[in-house]
Amino acid sequence: MSTRDRLNALRKAMASKGLDAVLILTADSHLSEYVAPPWQHRAWLTGFDGSAGDLLLTQTHAWLTVDSRYHAQAPQQVDEHLIEVVKLGSPHAKTMHQLLQALPLQSRIGADYEQISVRQCTHLQKETRGLQWVSSSGLVASVRQALGQTVAVVPALWTTLPESVAGQSSQAKFEDVRAAMQAKGATLLPLVKLDEIAWLFNLRGGDIPHSPVGFAYAIVSLDKSWLFVHEGTLSEASKAALKILNVQVSPLESFWQVLGDLASTLTPNDCCWLDSANVSQAVSDTLSAHAPNLRQLDSINPVTKLKAVKNQTECDGMQEAVRRASVAIIKMLAWLSRQTPEQLSEADVADYLRQRYFDDPACQDLSFPSIVGAASHSAIVHYSNPSASVPLVASNFLLIDSGGQYLGLDASEASKPFMGTTDATRTVLIGNASTRATLKQKQAYTAVLKSLIAVSSQVFPAGTTGAQLDGITRSPLWQAYLDFGHGSGHGVGAYLSVHEGPNGIHKRAETPLEPGMITSIEPGYYEPGWGGIRLENLAEVVVDEDNPEWLRFKTLTQIPFDPKLIDWSWLSHAEKAWLSTYSQAIEASVLQELSPEEAQWLSEQLLIA
Amino acid sequence: MSTRDRLNALRKAMASKGLDAVLILTADSHLSEYVAPPWQHRAWLTGFDGSAGDLLLTQTHAWLTVDSRYHAQAPQQVDEHLIEVVKLGSPHAKTMHQLLQALPLQSRIGADYEQISVRQCTHLQKETRGLQWVSSSGLVASVRQALGQTVAVVPALWTTLPESVAGQSSQAKFEDVRAAMQAKGATLLPLVKLDEIAWLFNLRGGDIPHSPVGFAYAIVSLDKSWLFVHEGTLSEASKAALKILNVQVSPLESFWQVLGDLASTLTPNDCCWLDSANVSQAVSDTLSAHAPNLRQLDSINPVTKLKAVKNQTECDGMQEAVRRASVAIIKMLAWLSRQTPEQLSEADVADYLRQRYFDDPACQDLSFPSIVGAASHSAIVHYSNPSASVPLVASNFLLIDSGGQYLGLDASEASKPFMGTTDATRTVLIGNASTRATLKQKQAYTAVLKSLIAVSSQVFPAGTTGAQLDGITRSPLWQAYLDFGHGSGHGVGAYLSVHEGPNGIHKRAETPLEPGMITSIEPGYYEPGWGGIRLENLAEVVVDEDNPEWLRFKTLTQIPFDPKLIDWSWLSHAEKAWLSTYSQAIEASVLQELSPEEAQWLSEQLLIA
Repeated sequence: MSTRDRLNALRKAMASKGLDAVLILTADSHLSEYVAPPWQHRAWLTGFDGSAGDLLLTQTHAWLTVDSRYHAQAPQQVDEHLIEVVKLGSPHAKTMHQLLQALPLQSRIGADYEQISVRQCTHLQKETRGLQWVSSSGLVASVRQALGQTVAVVPALWTTLPESVAGQSSQAKFEDVRAAMQAKGATLLPLVKLDEIAWLFNLRGGDIPHSPVGFAYAIVSLDKSWLFVHEGTLSEASKAALKILNVQVSPLESFWQVLGDLASTLTPNDCCWLDSANVSQAVSDTLSAHAPNLRQLDSINPVTKLKAVKNQTECDGMQEAVRRASVAIIKMLAWLSRQTPEQLSEADVADYLRQRYFDDPACQDLSFPSIVGAASHSAIVHYSNPSASVPLVASNFLLIDSGGQYLGLDASEASKPFMGTTDATRTVLIGNASTRATLKQKQAYTAVLKSLIAVSSQVFPAGTTGAQLDGITRSPLWQAYLDFGHGSGHGVGAYLSVHEGPNGIHKRAETPLEPGMITSIEPGYYEPGWGGIRLENLAEVVVDEDNPEWLRFKTLTQIPFDPKLIDWSWLSHAEKAWLSTYSQAIEASVLQELSPEEAQWLSEQLLIA
Repeated sequence: MSTRDRLNALRKAMASKGLDAVLILTADSHLSEYVAPPWQHRAWLTGFDGSAGDLLLTQTHAWLTVDSRYHAQAPQQVDEHLIEVVKLGSPHAKTMHQLLQALPLQSRIGADYEQISVRQCTHLQKETRGLQWVSSSGLVASVRQALGQTVAVVPALWTTLPESVAGQSSQAKFEDVRAAMQAKGATLLPLVKLDEIAWLFNLRGGDIPHSPVGFAYAIVSLDKSWLFVHEGTLSEASKAALKILNVQVSPLESFWQVLGDLASTLTPNDCCWLDSANVSQAVSDTLSAHAPNLRQLDSINPVTKLKAVKNQTECDGMQEAVRRASVAIIKMLAWLSRQTPEQLSEADVADYLRQRYFDDPACQDLSFPSIVGAASHSAIVHYSNPSASVPLVASNFLLIDSGGQYLGLDASEASKPFMGTTDATRTVLIGNASTRATLKQKQAYTAVLKSLIAVSSQVFPAGTTGAQLDGITRSPLWQAYLDFGHGSGHGVGAYLSVHEGPNGIHKRAETPLEPGMITSIEPGYYEPGWGGIRLENLAEVVVDEDNPEWLRFKTLTQIPFDPKLIDWSWLSHAEKAWLSTYSQAIEASVLQELSPEEAQWLSEQLLIA
């Protein structure tokens, strides 16, 4: 079936609905970051299968907007006679908002309101005044179905987490959520995000790549709750446990009906908690249709906030997961140091690393596709397709960014049951013992390292935001006239999403950091053509040992830096002291897992000049 | 006339309007920071004359909320049989929102919607659901008038600034504002803030203490504009100049009528730019009443943004004003070093300093009441009533925070015509040559100094926000487990308000800093009972000399630090280098204005150990 046929079938459906245009985003009905194959409508329609890109279709034209990661790939995959590829960020390239604004006034535009947050929808409508927006939920899915082009959903079975791993019973979580609701006067809380539902019910699924979540919706009231999942995916034991919690389990598809019915029963005393950033426009519209005067509370939803602050068991589990991922990465780096660069491809490194992750039976999946970028590819921040035909290049950088999803339910001598999600990046100089870094390589690497140390060693008071810490992170790089185009850190879930909010370290991060929050710390520097550096650790916010009214980071990641790339003369006494303490911590936590050869390599990396 | 009589008269007026309560804020109809006497209704009603404090009045009760600055003063000035003083921040003290929430549901509450921004009003209504809010504009004023208790407004004459001082003609400013309006599709822009109007029309007045502005409203459309001022306050020459710009000058009181009439003539193609933070609810309501479907744009108003980025003439003027204020402060500090502390009061220091400001004929006013806090008073951030009965105390801190409003229209050998607003703080150790600071005093002072140097010497890229720089400022203090409870810096006007937005250095400051913005940099440390330290400079954002794609601060303030309070061993080489460069700059800019005795004192302060 050709792209032309697919687009034409959708155009016919548009016409029958009176739509002049449809906007098709890379999204699912759970506002997920990673989209599972059944929801990849844009890829089906256009042939372009990148992880991001939006399609705007009218009866006569189609525009596909892609960011700089896909400026080369999109035109290769797309028939440009049928679809105009718009390279965002290029000179004169219009943004999606500008493309929309250029449509005739009063055009009727469809977008899937299940796949767009209330906030996004409001912003879209505000920026495109003069257009008539309507929801076209299910439009592309129905076209695919009519054409027999649907990708079947094969839902995975749910796993119920024992409290020994989750650290808190689902019952206790419900009590916390309801206490937060009562404090704000809210009586109803709909949830569409998969990680929020997985956290609250202590369930894990397997429907989304790299993230142990399953398709679900949920609604929480002050005395009962509803969980909507694919039928047949919960064991009898899980169902019994949910019944005790007064959870009504219903088929996934019935969510919208139940939500509407429930809204009809609400009184003026009810108040629905709708976090505009984390709930879809369709939820808001369904409620409004059935309860026009329903009071709404737009505030960060209590699950998001409670989930971000890990309990002690989760923190311990994250530390163990990160330790194990560190071992996998150290083994890969030690192996890499013994290879002949020209005989290895980026994909070879990614494969070897994947094997080391999966040597560990607790590693269930990678937490995202590994980034392995050689030479100039190291400058591409999201280089997530390591190539089998691109060899490593001596005297150049290799940047490796990877993580694992860990669930270890079997207690052993070495480890209690645990779970965690990891994310770590190191950049190394490719070559042998005689390879020397250039002055520029050393200066840039050392500036990135100084930035990592700056925030890792910073003491800060309660109330400190990620925006303030972002400045502290960048300060050493800026003093060297260097910077990087992404945030300094993001929240990480506990055996959940590798990116989660509300905590983070970037210039718009207004959430105060609290003990138990775990974030990445990942300064970098990228120069197209020359190469890129990123050093990424995970760190937990903890109470300062010396002064319990203050906070600081406890670094979880235990991977050495590349001493060949460090300009020791530029490090202060305090920075060297931090590195020395860090080296001791690495040895203490990973040495027993290494072969003598690997241990030898490690000890060479940990020497401080 | 007693407080009881005043409150009863207002209660009678409330009842006649069907109001169950009124909320009386410290505010005027121009959302001013400093409120002129005719608008000080809360002071007239309660007897409490502090600079901040809000009154909530019902038929049976009155609550006055005051912040920690006024916990002592308010009960002294207020009859607590009639008015309950609520000390905000004390244990169990309710906030104004909580007091309002405790009123009976459906109570009708009046607030003056001319005196409250759209954003404040929305927030207030959102936080007090269940109450009926109505505007009670003019209610207290009419009660005062009926009682013969009005304070007459004696409007000052307007001064038209020559372009040699303003750096840009009013015509050119209108062109910039209209270009911004057209870029956003806006056709109408109402202005109520006095500094915005003064900036746009290149006018300065004298109706508000410490700020050279006058009472006015304005409306800007794409081809004409309206200026509303007290009759008889514009010279014929000024009127002629305004006529050329197609400005319709009208009486102040006619603003609301004209705004409503204008709204009635608008078409669906019109769009009114209403910056919700900088325009009053009454403006929004007037527009809505006359044009219910008027499109509105809520975005930071273009005048606010254009005003914040000073032109070269304004920057030069600010530098000259700050240099002159620095001379006044240096002369005061040199004099202070020769006095016997026990024989001097805080007020003596403030008086001597005021005289030094006014030695300069270009100094029109202080930019705020000087803060002179001795010993434990230095720990009170807003200690703005220096006492004639509080002597200085040897071996203790004295904190002096002051500024001037400068307009120098006479060109002389020494100076071109210029204007500027200044703000500077220094903290010194009181005593004689043999007085030594304690270790704790030195450590705290040096930590504050390190914070000042950190941000003053920071290079940063375009797009950097005040929140990021706030973290960089606080980093050295935090490493010493010290912090301070106010922002690290605020924007400053050019012969306008000493506090202006949108630029600033604090954790909620999302505005990117741009060349030409001028902010204070003012880290501090305060310990109640022990004392406080603040070091405040003004600095201009400039393009980095070495690397024109980067930005940094150019320090304008030229006042030495107290060498007795510096722990030299704790400063890095880079920090000492910054101090050395700063010392040279101070000598170069102020030495010619000092007596031999003052110059000798200065040279002793500038020695670097």
